[in-house]
Amino acid sequence: MWGKKARAWRRELSWNRKGPGNMRGDGMDSLFSQRVKRARRSVIRELLKLAEEPGIISFAGGIPDPETFPREALAQLAADEILNNYRKSLQYTTTEGKRPLRAALIRWFSQQGLHYELDQVVITSASQQGLDLVAKTFLDPGDAVFLSLPTYLGAIQAFRAMEGELVGIPLLEDGMDLDALEEAIPRARKAGHPPKLIYVVPDFQNPSGVTWSLEKRRRLVEIASRENLVIVEDMPYRSLRFSGTPVPPVAELDEEGRVLVLFTFSKVLAAGLRLGALAGPKRLVEKVVVMKQAADLCTSSLTQRLAARFLLEHDFSQHIQNLCHRYREKRDAMLEALEQYMPEVEGLSWTRPEGGLFLWLRLPEHVDTERMLPRALKHKVAYVIGTPFFVDGSGHNTMRLSFSLPTVEEIREGVRRLGQVLEEELASLPSPQRG
Amino acid sequence: MWGKKARAWRRELSWNRKGPGNMRGDGMDSLFSQRVKRARRSVIRELLKLAEEPGIISFAGGIPDPETFPREALAQLAADEILNNYRKSLQYTTTEGKRPLRAALIRWFSQQGLHYELDQVVITSASQQGLDLVAKTFLDPGDAVFLSLPTYLGAIQAFRAMEGELVGIPLLEDGMDLDALEEAIPRARKAGHPPKLIYVVPDFQNPSGVTWSLEKRRRLVEIASRENLVIVEDMPYRSLRFSGTPVPPVAELDEEGRVLVLFTFSKVLAAGLRLGALAGPKRLVEKVVVMKQAADLCTSSLTQRLAARFLLEHDFSQHIQNLCHRYREKRDAMLEALEQYMPEVEGLSWTRPEGGLFLWLRLPEHVDTERMLPRALKHKVAYVIGTPFFVDGSGHNTMRLSFSLPTVEEIREGVRRLGQVLEEELASLPSPQRG
Repeated sequence: MWGKKARAWRRELSWNRKGPGNMRGDGMDSLFSQRVKRARRSVIRELLKLAEEPGIISFAGGIPDPETFPREALAQLAADEILNNYRKSLQYTTTEGKRPLRAALIRWFSQQGLHYELDQVVITSASQQGLDLVAKTFLDPGDAVFLSLPTYLGAIQAFRAMEGELVGIPLLEDGMDLDALEEAIPRARKAGHPPKLIYVVPDFQNPSGVTWSLEKRRRLVEIASRENLVIVEDMPYRSLRFSGTPVPPVAELDEEGRVLVLFTFSKVLAAGLRLGALAGPKRLVEKVVVMKQAADLCTSSLTQRLAARFLLEHDFSQHIQNLCHRYREKRDAMLEALEQYMPEVEGLSWTRPEGGLFLWLRLPEHVDTERMLPRALKHKVAYVIGTPFFVDGSGHNTMRLSFSLPTVEEIREGVRRLGQVLEEELASLPSPQRG
Repeated sequence: MWGKKARAWRRELSWNRKGPGNMRGDGMDSLFSQRVKRARRSVIRELLKLAEEPGIISFAGGIPDPETFPREALAQLAADEILNNYRKSLQYTTTEGKRPLRAALIRWFSQQGLHYELDQVVITSASQQGLDLVAKTFLDPGDAVFLSLPTYLGAIQAFRAMEGELVGIPLLEDGMDLDALEEAIPRARKAGHPPKLIYVVPDFQNPSGVTWSLEKRRRLVEIASRENLVIVEDMPYRSLRFSGTPVPPVAELDEEGRVLVLFTFSKVLAAGLRLGALAGPKRLVEKVVVMKQAADLCTSSLTQRLAARFLLEHDFSQHIQNLCHRYREKRDAMLEALEQYMPEVEGLSWTRPEGGLFLWLRLPEHVDTERMLPRALKHKVAYVIGTPFFVDGSGHNTMRLSFSLPTVEEIREGVRRLGQVLEEELASLPSPQRG
């Protein structure tokens, strides 16, 4: 361990000695931008590597089940597109994206209650690029973005990369604590952080699995209107509802055109295509398009044509239903196993999401999920620690469990192991102080 | 207590915003970032739309000939990858990119004299994303980037999007005017614009077709070392040499690790895959990777697998030779037609590139290529005006001609029309003032 550090240090030294001006290394560090100096690699990314050891049952990555990818259909479409439509499918396309794909997405959006014209939809390289483009379009350094505690890690990274001031608002069972939001907005303004964006994942949020109530969605729109903010509504999991009744998207409740919607095909078609879309009021979307042009000119014509033809020529609704069936089984298996195997201990609770890929555990205050992780890995089970999802550094006693990738059997066995890990961890810790 | 104050302030704000003179729209404009307020859509993009009219022979877009895309091979690989390797080809991959593709690229780089390890290469969504990531990694607002007059438009857009201060340096027949560069660097520093990057396309530059001499490449590296700058060496056309002797890449001459190389498959495999790579010293590349993670998590696994397998299982060198053969014919046709059809007039000249997709015309000073464009379109021929390639707004009498997309016959006919356009334009203008 120390040897490794020492080697890294020696490498640094030898770098500095190279060349006539031996301050060269430090000199080059001074060339980095402020955003890079502040940015860090994802902790989770590093942890995920640990979860790849053979024999480990991993609830860590938010990775779709590859058996849900419609491989026969896509293989046939790909061969046909490349062979017979190569002048389009292998050529550059417009920055906004392929028309047939945008048209197909407009139909999907309208099923969600959202009605867009062609020039209100731009294809992105999955929703992460949507986040990057939104950050570029709205954020100057120090501008305030409001997001929940916890929230999606990719959003944190995208907004941080444009040096936004990230303001965390507690997430309750039915959505963000909007009283806290209402206080935080003027506070940020007063502190010199112009409020710009509110970022939400209202359906089966990553990481918590929480779905916002209709009432909170309405009030969020009112707040955004009163405070003149843009709402970024990320809906990667919206189609993946297993139970309960759909709640209208925030964007449907907005009458002023201040909601930008992010969609991705990663969870409902194939993550490896890197396809998504951003939709919203034209006057905002056209600025996003300018940013996209500088970012990558356009998204892959080939993958766009594949997705467009899949949506046009295959039964996407049926495909989604099959997905939901598969993931519902896995969610149910995880919930049942948690009931069965988790120790009965005060302060332990978990969410019961009506869809999506994740559920969220809160452990007793004195348990630290990062400290507990080596024990879990020893027991051959992996989870994601909660802290990286909290912009305020809290959440030490939380974890995210993803049920999408393992089989039902692996889920049962993995949760059994996790129960044992927690019991051992609790036994190893001094009892918490009582007030 | 704080809540009360906040509410009072909100009332005031909402009073200011709502009411009869609903300023909602203006209010939302105030939410845009500085970079967006300054950014403009590409002029060329708008002009390209004009060139799409039926019957027009277009030398405008820098678009590869789709007949060069290896469609049979790619169709077969795509079907096989999706059907039999869907667990990888349709799934997320690492931010750095697929190992087999990076390994294949390392072999290609080594044929150019550049020797990289795996962790020195990151796959990008074509070279435009490379430019975006480089801009993010190094530029704070106002930081100076030095680039030639003219230079690649996509680079201008990417550096502008991160609010770089773009400093134009004249481009001579054998590369940048390095005396001018040596003067410009301290001048920028003095003016409060910390010098960060020098952006160059040393082989068959877009738009000019100019290739840098070895001597200038050496001196560029010396200047970058002395002034502590990073060189961004963009090599989209390097393989496309039709004649003459290859010159070592700038990166090969660098001993200090201050050159980042950008590669793209757009011109040598298929533009629609949106695949490229960034390579360089590990300490710089690892920062770029952090920025890529926030930008799109990863590039498409599917397109990466296709490119990797094409490079591993097919004869890429032979493919490149075929490409060169095809484009050489087109370049020769254009050069011959220019000799034949261009009027003999003082101040008219064009480049004779040894490779790439473009050549560059300089017209007499009193001719404005933007003003002349409607006449060209009337004659059913299109070109790209030169001005957008000049960060200082000069170049009114220049144009770029791309020979990649039209057939040899179309090239001859298009240049004939262009000669006529120029003759008419010259006849319509008052003779230039003589000194």
